[in-house]
Amino acid sequence: MTGTWKTAITRIKPNEVRLRGYCIDELMGQASFAQVVYLALKGELPSPDVGRLMDAMLVSSIDHGVTPPSTQAARIAASTGAPLNAAIAAGVLSINKHHGGAIYDCMGTLAEVIRRANEAGQSLEAAGEALVGEYKAAKRKVAGFGHRVHTSDPRTAKLLALAHDLGLAGQGVAAVRAMEAAFAAGGRPLPVNVDGALAALLIDLAIPQALANAFFIMARVPGLVAQIYEEQTREAPMRHIDPRESEYDGPEPRTWRSSS
Amino acid sequence: MTGTWKTAITRIKPNEVRLRGYCIDELMGQASFAQVVYLALKGELPSPDVGRLMDAMLVSSIDHGVTPPSTQAARIAASTGAPLNAAIAAGVLSINKHHGGAIYDCMGTLAEVIRRANEAGQSLEAAGEALVGEYKAAKRKVAGFGHRVHTSDPRTAKLLALAHDLGLAGQGVAAVRAMEAAFAAGGRPLPVNVDGALAALLIDLAIPQALANAFFIMARVPGLVAQIYEEQTREAPMRHIDPRESEYDGPEPRTWRSSS
Amino acid sequence: MTGTWKTAITRIKPNEVRLRGYCIDELMGQASFAQVVYLALKGELPSPDVGRLMDAMLVSSIDHGVTPPSTQAARIAASTGAPLNAAIAAGVLSINKHHGGAIYDCMGTLAEVIRRANEAGQSLEAAGEALVGEYKAAKRKVAGFGHRVHTSDPRTAKLLALAHDLGLAGQGVAAVRAMEAAFAAGGRPLPVNVDGALAALLIDLAIPQALANAFFIMARVPGLVAQIYEEQTREAPMRHIDPRESEYDGPEPRTWRSSS
Amino acid sequence: MTGTWKTAITRIKPNEVRLRGYCIDELMGQASFAQVVYLALKGELPSPDVGRLMDAMLVSSIDHGVTPPSTQAARIAASTGAPLNAAIAAGVLSINKHHGGAIYDCMGTLAEVIRRANEAGQSLEAAGEALVGEYKAAKRKVAGFGHRVHTSDPRTAKLLALAHDLGLAGQGVAAVRAMEAAFAAGGRPLPVNVDGALAALLIDLAIPQALANAFFIMARVPGLVAQIYEEQTREAPMRHIDPRESEYDGPEPRTWRSSS
Repeated sequence: MTGTWKTAITRIKPNEVRLRGYCIDELMGQASFAQVVYLALKGELPSPDVGRLMDAMLVSSIDHGVTPPSTQAARIAASTGAPLNAAIAAGVLSINKHHGGAIYDCMGTLAEVIRRANEAGQSLEAAGEALVGEYKAAKRKVAGFGHRVHTSDPRTAKLLALAHDLGLAGQGVAAVRAMEAAFAAGGRPLPVNVDGALAALLIDLAIPQALANAFFIMARVPGLVAQIYEEQTREAPMRHIDPRESEYDGPEPRTWRSSS
Repeated sequence: MTGTWKTAITRIKPNEVRLRGYCIDELMGQASFAQVVYLALKGELPSPDVGRLMDAMLVSSIDHGVTPPSTQAARIAASTGAPLNAAIAAGVLSINKHHGGAIYDCMGTLAEVIRRANEAGQSLEAAGEALVGEYKAAKRKVAGFGHRVHTSDPRTAKLLALAHDLGLAGQGVAAVRAMEAAFAAGGRPLPVNVDGALAALLIDLAIPQALANAFFIMARVPGLVAQIYEEQTREAPMRHIDPRESEYDGPEPRTWRSSS
Repeated sequence: MTGTWKTAITRIKPNEVRLRGYCIDELMGQASFAQVVYLALKGELPSPDVGRLMDAMLVSSIDHGVTPPSTQAARIAASTGAPLNAAIAAGVLSINKHHGGAIYDCMGTLAEVIRRANEAGQSLEAAGEALVGEYKAAKRKVAGFGHRVHTSDPRTAKLLALAHDLGLAGQGVAAVRAMEAAFAAGGRPLPVNVDGALAALLIDLAIPQALANAFFIMARVPGLVAQIYEEQTREAPMRHIDPRESEYDGPEPRTWRSSS
Repeated sequence: MTGTWKTAITRIKPNEVRLRGYCIDELMGQASFAQVVYLALKGELPSPDVGRLMDAMLVSSIDHGVTPPSTQAARIAASTGAPLNAAIAAGVLSINKHHGGAIYDCMGTLAEVIRRANEAGQSLEAAGEALVGEYKAAKRKVAGFGHRVHTSDPRTAKLLALAHDLGLAGQGVAAVRAMEAAFAAGGRPLPVNVDGALAALLIDLAIPQALANAFFIMARVPGLVAQIYEEQTREAPMRHIDPRESEYDGPEPRTWRSSS
């Protein structure tokens, strides 16, 4: 019996694997992995510019050192002797509302700003200012703004500049800028962080909010792999892992210009 | 207290995030995600050609429909109401020796063929033939050869051709070809499958065998995300999920030529 | 530095392990595991009768054959070669709102019936009837009633009878009975199922609703272990696992009277 | 279609749930959860004495404070907002060779001592002394002996005494005692720890070595639940969790004599 439920992702036939209609072997060598991730999620291949933005977005979140809880959980699991996939899973299970989840929450906020502006015929600035006021009155934090370490996150600046340069900045980017301006106008400047920038771009790429957390996970899994592998190969098992006691001893600062 | 343990992956300073020495914001927009995955794992940026091969390798394994056990486990978890990250974790936990693990096992076999050839001053063909004979005598399967569905897997052909065209095919590719020839010579042709091709390329990229399974996981996570999201949005909860009863209803076969 | 955060569960000193104040070695041999589970969660040892009810509640949910999604996910992971703990984790990740979660939801419903009755000076019957009416009008299902397989679940009857006999049936049991009566009065009898009975007893034991799902998980993990071990020892790896194709070949029906 | 694969654990019929042949509702109220865990794993109900030992074994490992890696991983996941089941899974994934795994390894060692003694017609003492000598020569640690915190673990003493008093101490207990004596005779006394005691008892209960890790997991899951729930209810999200900075503030030392 076949045909009782449907899937629109991949069709397998003998000697043929098609993702969203395209032969995977045709995509290989032509499309970047980031482009094919977009295809898998959205059902259509991105334009080259959208593909380039996807690459940049995924690169922005690949790793953030040893302090994120997902990294700690993955290293702890690895330290007890977990195989690599189990340590990855422990890390992925630690990516939730309070770690990685700001992308999801900020997408919701930006969508609300955009909705209100459209419905009321308001500017995004006015709608953003109103929402910032409401959050302030309710003593609620707005996800996507401010950072524990970075006052001016270079990843944020690059993401927003890139979207602008590629002509892909839309209402999402405008809304996040409007919110940032509203914070500054309110006397307590709070810069967009990398989660806020990703939220803005995901809105402008029309990627569903339900995939916000997944986007972060897809980007971070390779970083977790690097961290787990380092734990497995550099450290003795069952050590106490305190991220505050770590010291970087990798390559010195260097720059790169791609020849591609 | 700092400095009691070392990490060589990422250095975080206020307003600066460096991966293996490079500012992440410098990589964004220039390097593909696949190139930065390579950087994270190997410590050095790949050449453009190696980056292109990495992209193709990751693309090759992004999804294989609804039958793989990792996809089934992820869909089952999603069907019970699991959040996306938990469903991903259930999928990742189902990528082990018997699913995805052929890459690891085949890397071991190819490394053994290469080692024997080098030590004995033999050709890879001779060493491969000897090893195939030993496996046959022991009635053991050789991982990386043969496929349940595909007799001539188009992903395999593309991976090996691409490595050849980019000048990146080395002893790994030669060894897998030698093994394939040995099977054919033994009267029971067994084609290289996509796991075998990936194993050969991972050897030629000098990526450690311990990361073989992780490579597959990094490639497959976005496919799992697409599958989980489809389950969450198209199906009622708690259904009985039989992959044999599924039918593809996505885009018709189509072709693509990148303008990039 | 010590003392920056607090824990009230276990105190470890050299040669002394105290759980909630009691030496674990004093509990061993005297208290049942179920009693100590209660102590761990609630902070106090249960009376012998409460301990006996806890044992019965955990026993009621230890296994339900090969069809539950948690069992399927655990067997699939095991079939790919996952170690036992990873297969358990895959199973636990499949215990959510739609599988196991009825206990949580039903606790909420019963608490609402009790609250309304108390606030309005109503009988539980009247409050239950009103709530059943509201759910019917909203075409919402009430968790904890009805079962796919069982019309009169023997585990339900035993749990409720035991609570009654031990003098532990309180407002929770009364509320679930009131709801059942309301369904019957409405012309569509819908029996309490095992989730509904557990929900009633958890309320009467004053175990927080937030632990409802955890209660089911604690009970089911040993069942998952048995299922995973059977998969590992009786079946070949990477088989297609269809629970509808399974057949029981264990011990014939038998009865037991404890001598304890 | 039915009957293509077999299961010997649970048979479900309408209004009947039988575990290993026994109606679950018959077991409820009569058998302790620990007894039914034994039934699920071994296929037969334990004698009351074996049931009592099972209870004590599970109680011995229910929790060991905030330092074990499984507890840390579970708390970290909880701190990021993970639902309870995902935090449990993160903890379970951190129970491996180097944490919890000593039970498995020690079972292997004890089985080896017993096998050698039986084959050579040696005493367990002689076989144990030889094995300790071999491990010492190879500078390998013997799992199940010595503890980071406890020099004389009260749980060990209680487990072994209980097995002795119940007449259940067999070759496993004798072998672990022989090993302990061999360490003492070698001039470096190394007491049996709780893992070693559990290993000895699992051998004497004829529970397969493959279930050693699972036994620890079944015992520890309720402890993880208590820890996760405490993290969720007492702490702010996304805190840095250092177990060395914790302080116990639960009930004062107290004693208990069961009236059951």
